[in-house]
Amino acid sequence: MTDSRIDGFLDGRLRLAQPARGYRAGADAVMLAAACPARPGQSVLELGCGAGVASLCLGWRVPDLTLTGLEIQGPYADLARANADANAIPLTVLQGDLARPPAVLRGLSVDHVIMNPPYFLAGTPAPDAGRATARAEATPLGMWVDAALRRLRPGGWLTAIQRADRLDGLLTALAGRAGAVAILPIAARPGDAAGRVLVAARKGSRGPLRLLAPLVTHGPGQALSPAAARILRDGAPIDMGNAKVP
Amino acid sequence: MTDSRIDGFLDGRLRLAQPARGYRAGADAVMLAAACPARPGQSVLELGCGAGVASLCLGWRVPDLTLTGLEIQGPYADLARANADANAIPLTVLQGDLARPPAVLRGLSVDHVIMNPPYFLAGTPAPDAGRATARAEATPLGMWVDAALRRLRPGGWLTAIQRADRLDGLLTALAGRAGAVAILPIAARPGDAAGRVLVAARKGSRGPLRLLAPLVTHGPGQALSPAAARILRDGAPIDMGNAKVP
Repeated sequence: MTDSRIDGFLDGRLRLAQPARGYRAGADAVMLAAACPARPGQSVLELGCGAGVASLCLGWRVPDLTLTGLEIQGPYADLARANADANAIPLTVLQGDLARPPAVLRGLSVDHVIMNPPYFLAGTPAPDAGRATARAEATPLGMWVDAALRRLRPGGWLTAIQRADRLDGLLTALAGRAGAVAILPIAARPGDAAGRVLVAARKGSRGPLRLLAPLVTHGPGQALSPAAARILRDGAPIDMGNAKVP
Repeated sequence: MTDSRIDGFLDGRLRLAQPARGYRAGADAVMLAAACPARPGQSVLELGCGAGVASLCLGWRVPDLTLTGLEIQGPYADLARANADANAIPLTVLQGDLARPPAVLRGLSVDHVIMNPPYFLAGTPAPDAGRATARAEATPLGMWVDAALRRLRPGGWLTAIQRADRLDGLLTALAGRAGAVAILPIAARPGDAAGRVLVAARKGSRGPLRLLAPLVTHGPGQALSPAAARILRDGAPIDMGNAKVP
């Protein structure tokens, strides 16, 4: 993973280096950033930040955040630091394993955690080792939720994006520990089953779960839907707190 | 609960007596029946069958089923029996508590269980005792799922309709015991959060969860959507297995 390439995000407003080969963040990271309800002055931790795409999209949208990323793979952590510098968005990147968090992480208590845990089970073949780690579930989903909830202040928000077929695993891990769960199904086209879910949950809340109307990312053709274009190109937020999605 | 009235279902194809005052089944029971994938010759148990609306809608649509209903309240059980007779649809109604099932129920092993557990927590005020029992959760949701899974043959299907904010409780109760979960959000209008969810799950399956595109029941005005009209008026089935999977 010595070669990197520059990918544009938010219609080129952010230019971020990612590995030329291997796992590269895309629309999922941008949607994750869009769904985090952080306000100026708050603190945000991203678990598994990779090259920093989600954290930096969030930092681009919301000023004056204290952004911290945890990434297990050194080359990705280096890219995330370089991307933060190149885009003049402050982001502290810690290299380490969320299953054995570095001491500085264990001392953190944040307003928001965001995460995009690996989508594929350990053992899924991947063409290179970096990509395999980024995509494979060496760390079970429940441990990601555990790590997130431990770092959140009471009342803080966890926002996660995940494959839709993992919704049960996410909800089971949250049960009894976080509430006010909001689920946004993300579907490629009208009438499709969801491919992804965005899930927000508030630590310690007993608020009711809400299953929102889906975000449909594409029109009948290949073009982005107007709602997806606002999020992915214009950097608009996703309001997980309203029944209606912008 | 001595007075009853006749309500029409499926555009009047079924005429069913329900209590004049107190809990009366409506669109939710019809949608539950529509979502059960029972085929002719199979057996179906309804937990909490009330006056029999869901079971009898299912028996109207699918011929040659062996239908059994369990109902804790005697007057509702009596109505269910009378409704079955009046509509010439065979339905065996057992009176009993799913938490302490009658012996004949404990011996059953069925292809399908359907259920519409009470929507409100115990303690919600209700104007009469019958309605209070039908609406209040004297029996926790997890016990409904337990009872359903015990009565299902391996590979049998549980189909349930529930308030959308109970989705986490349903999925948590199913975890590790049933799979191939399909979730159909039911929303009143386009863009609305779901008010109800239809959930299907297969006992012992490890198939992936699917979060389907919502069923929107009403147009921008007061009229039923075409999809809802087909289900509620024409008795069309809801195919929980046939949505496009990405």
